[in-house]
Amino acid sequence: MPRTVDLNCDMGESFGPWRMGEDDAVMPWITSANIACGFHAGDSETMRSTVALARNHGVAIGAHVGLPDLAGFGRREMAITPQQVHAFTLHQLGALEAFARVEGARVAHVKAHGALYHMVARETTLAVAFVRAVRDFDAALLLFGPAPSALAAASAQARIRFIAEGFVDRRYGNDGRLLARDIPGSVIDRVDDAVSQALTLLAPAWRHRSGDGSAVRIETLCLHGDRADAGSFAQAVREALQSADVRVQAPGAPAA
Amino acid sequence: MPRTVDLNCDMGESFGPWRMGEDDAVMPWITSANIACGFHAGDSETMRSTVALARNHGVAIGAHVGLPDLAGFGRREMAITPQQVHAFTLHQLGALEAFARVEGARVAHVKAHGALYHMVARETTLAVAFVRAVRDFDAALLLFGPAPSALAAASAQARIRFIAEGFVDRRYGNDGRLLARDIPGSVIDRVDDAVSQALTLLAPAWRHRSGDGSAVRIETLCLHGDRADAGSFAQAVREALQSADVRVQAPGAPAA
Amino acid sequence: MPRTVDLNCDMGESFGPWRMGEDDAVMPWITSANIACGFHAGDSETMRSTVALARNHGVAIGAHVGLPDLAGFGRREMAITPQQVHAFTLHQLGALEAFARVEGARVAHVKAHGALYHMVARETTLAVAFVRAVRDFDAALLLFGPAPSALAAASAQARIRFIAEGFVDRRYGNDGRLLARDIPGSVIDRVDDAVSQALTLLAPAWRHRSGDGSAVRIETLCLHGDRADAGSFAQAVREALQSADVRVQAPGAPAA
Amino acid sequence: MPRTVDLNCDMGESFGPWRMGEDDAVMPWITSANIACGFHAGDSETMRSTVALARNHGVAIGAHVGLPDLAGFGRREMAITPQQVHAFTLHQLGALEAFARVEGARVAHVKAHGALYHMVARETTLAVAFVRAVRDFDAALLLFGPAPSALAAASAQARIRFIAEGFVDRRYGNDGRLLARDIPGSVIDRVDDAVSQALTLLAPAWRHRSGDGSAVRIETLCLHGDRADAGSFAQAVREALQSADVRVQAPGAPAA
Repeated sequence: MPRTVDLNCDMGESFGPWRMGEDDAVMPWITSANIACGFHAGDSETMRSTVALARNHGVAIGAHVGLPDLAGFGRREMAITPQQVHAFTLHQLGALEAFARVEGARVAHVKAHGALYHMVARETTLAVAFVRAVRDFDAALLLFGPAPSALAAASAQARIRFIAEGFVDRRYGNDGRLLARDIPGSVIDRVDDAVSQALTLLAPAWRHRSGDGSAVRIETLCLHGDRADAGSFAQAVREALQSADVRVQAPGAPAA
Repeated sequence: MPRTVDLNCDMGESFGPWRMGEDDAVMPWITSANIACGFHAGDSETMRSTVALARNHGVAIGAHVGLPDLAGFGRREMAITPQQVHAFTLHQLGALEAFARVEGARVAHVKAHGALYHMVARETTLAVAFVRAVRDFDAALLLFGPAPSALAAASAQARIRFIAEGFVDRRYGNDGRLLARDIPGSVIDRVDDAVSQALTLLAPAWRHRSGDGSAVRIETLCLHGDRADAGSFAQAVREALQSADVRVQAPGAPAA
Repeated sequence: MPRTVDLNCDMGESFGPWRMGEDDAVMPWITSANIACGFHAGDSETMRSTVALARNHGVAIGAHVGLPDLAGFGRREMAITPQQVHAFTLHQLGALEAFARVEGARVAHVKAHGALYHMVARETTLAVAFVRAVRDFDAALLLFGPAPSALAAASAQARIRFIAEGFVDRRYGNDGRLLARDIPGSVIDRVDDAVSQALTLLAPAWRHRSGDGSAVRIETLCLHGDRADAGSFAQAVREALQSADVRVQAPGAPAA
Repeated sequence: MPRTVDLNCDMGESFGPWRMGEDDAVMPWITSANIACGFHAGDSETMRSTVALARNHGVAIGAHVGLPDLAGFGRREMAITPQQVHAFTLHQLGALEAFARVEGARVAHVKAHGALYHMVARETTLAVAFVRAVRDFDAALLLFGPAPSALAAASAQARIRFIAEGFVDRRYGNDGRLLARDIPGSVIDRVDDAVSQALTLLAPAWRHRSGDGSAVRIETLCLHGDRADAGSFAQAVREALQSADVRVQAPGAPAA
């Protein structure tokens, strides 16, 4: 039986006159785009054009929700309250949906960005607030994130469908957690190593145990779009997966 | 036959720790709240709490769409493109709708703020872009603004319902246009003068001619919420209107 | 022998159209003004007018250095690097000095604001970076802060004169540290209690021991300017101190 | 007799994680760097590292003063007051000087950026406010800009030394003014055309008349740093000038 997996990538991270990422080159090869919503990156016009680019390629649109810290690109942890997590998430979801609506598309998933990604993975009160914002806005949204995590647990409790994410360019330890970046060999740079890593993550043998004993199955693979060869890298990963009989499609997509 | 009119006021203009306006005192007396959406004022938490306050008082919720200039409170004209007017308006509409949705309410109207109010009243290309954003987002939204104006004309062309606005605390010239603030007597400060001005604006005799010759009928009266006695001022205007057999209700409200 | 003490207060915290604090009412009664420098509060015009107000009252001018988080008013801790602490502090010092120069005044002291106040008090690497920025900019600047603290230690090491600060509206525990705000009675509201607290802090008997065993002597008392009666509160504290034979003057001021 | 000219380029326009320009490649070939000061581009750490880079190459440091519009990169005209021009300019000058001081350098010149460049060239009240900020901060600063202009006139009146600027990549009309960008052939792209343009601007024959009849002599040539080959372009222009016996040095530099 063929496996199915989603390929997601952060998109729309330009701001004003500043370009970031290789969106045009990457978009043809991915199935889910996490689009910055103006808090950590992105601006109104970039949100609109990125939504249009994703729709043109049939790529699922997601809100990449970040901290209100443009200069720090949302990568600095900030001591925000659960109420703020809730309000910031709604604000960003609503803004992205406006652009999706005008482009004849819809928002399909949500993913936290940068420091917020780690905060909602770790802190239950923040995870609960984040999940509540998603559910309050649209309970059919898919929530991408690491598993096991406080976020996965909060999603399960709120009956929001959680999509566990794996990284093709990072090594994992035996406990199923990412190795720290400063450990030699923990970052994967070569394309064939990334492909091999992708296949490992999708193999039935690769399952680690969450806190409550349930198995984690990776449903989406994250590519990073900020390498110079991001487009050809994405293409290579996608083609290798297809060669290995893995179907690449967005998690909410209808079965072919 | 009794006249009907809406009373609108700018709300939700606080930002972070900074308070502005007397929202709690004014909200009980108005029928439409123009809520700042984070560009010229307002922040995520303030948007949410202001939406909740309006809903609790049965006040219609509107997006008060401004320029991206917090320090200047959206009052400095900026040379933005029609594409930016369109994108900025969608961004703010979407954000406000997210908070309306979570509070069980809906966005009923849109009004441009500050310098943008004057820009879309004057410049046809900007007016068209603004109206297009409104129509693209929700063609049932009501659009508040001055008339005659480029905005009123663009609304008519796009079949968006336009609600002409009058000011109870500013004098008008014989041509139906606001007198400049620096003309002595052009600003109305006393409550009974404001009430008298309101009744004048609503009288059948008060009609001026727009460019295409059509009569303008005022359907909403704007109160300013930044005076120290904004609450009692709003109450006095409302009660005086009701005493004069004017029904005060939001324009989209069902007939009583 | 009469004691001498400085009275400091946070000033210039308005932003754009938003007012904060009672600067005009408080300035006549204090001897040092901590002026916001545009990161957590304040803007270019407010910085200039606040510098002018302080100079007109003969009040010493200080840079109130904050985190780059306007919406959070610099009160949310952020994971910034020592290099950022250094650069942010220089940025704010330089900006304030430009306004002091044009107003014929000079910057006399520096104080960290909000979350940064606590971060540099607690974390040695951040304290060292903060002190290094002060020393690199002007080694004659006075540095206000809590003692004992990482900041006091870093100042001593860099030979920057440290001015230990006490709070007239907060209670201290037996260990000389502030009681948490949520402990009943920890916040002082009444004027005569604040005066009594001020005299206690200045009494020879009130000394606690820093980490290296040295005694801490309070040289400046912090008033909060955000209470409605901030002006009369400041006046009452100042007059009571003078009645108790305490000379109130800025720490860098020449002896009378 | 050999001519002397300065080569200036906009530097330090990166912001947070976003890169802009080829500062490392261009800096070796220019003699004056216009460094963004955090309003339209640049941030605290970028300001510091750009100042250090300029100092390391013996390049004169200038404040590139812009409008408070990061998303618009300071290129959208804004209706700001003369008081704001004055305060914004001081704010940026002071911030840059702090970084110059800590790097053992000094600020030598000032240039307005983007929309502000055009506003102070055109509007006398804004030009006077800009020049007054420069003079209030440091009357020895050189002021770069177009001539003839309201700015040149205001500088003359305030006895600030004005350095007239020419563009090597733009064509001029017979009246000595830049041709609009949309006129075919008005933008110079090839290196040898730019060199030829540079030599034309420096020739004694190229002088146009300002409003008061005085001749304009170009003392600095502006290169644009945002082309992909900005480094080799700058190198080619500089070497061609030197081959033509033009001495390339900053205007405040001591004669060799």
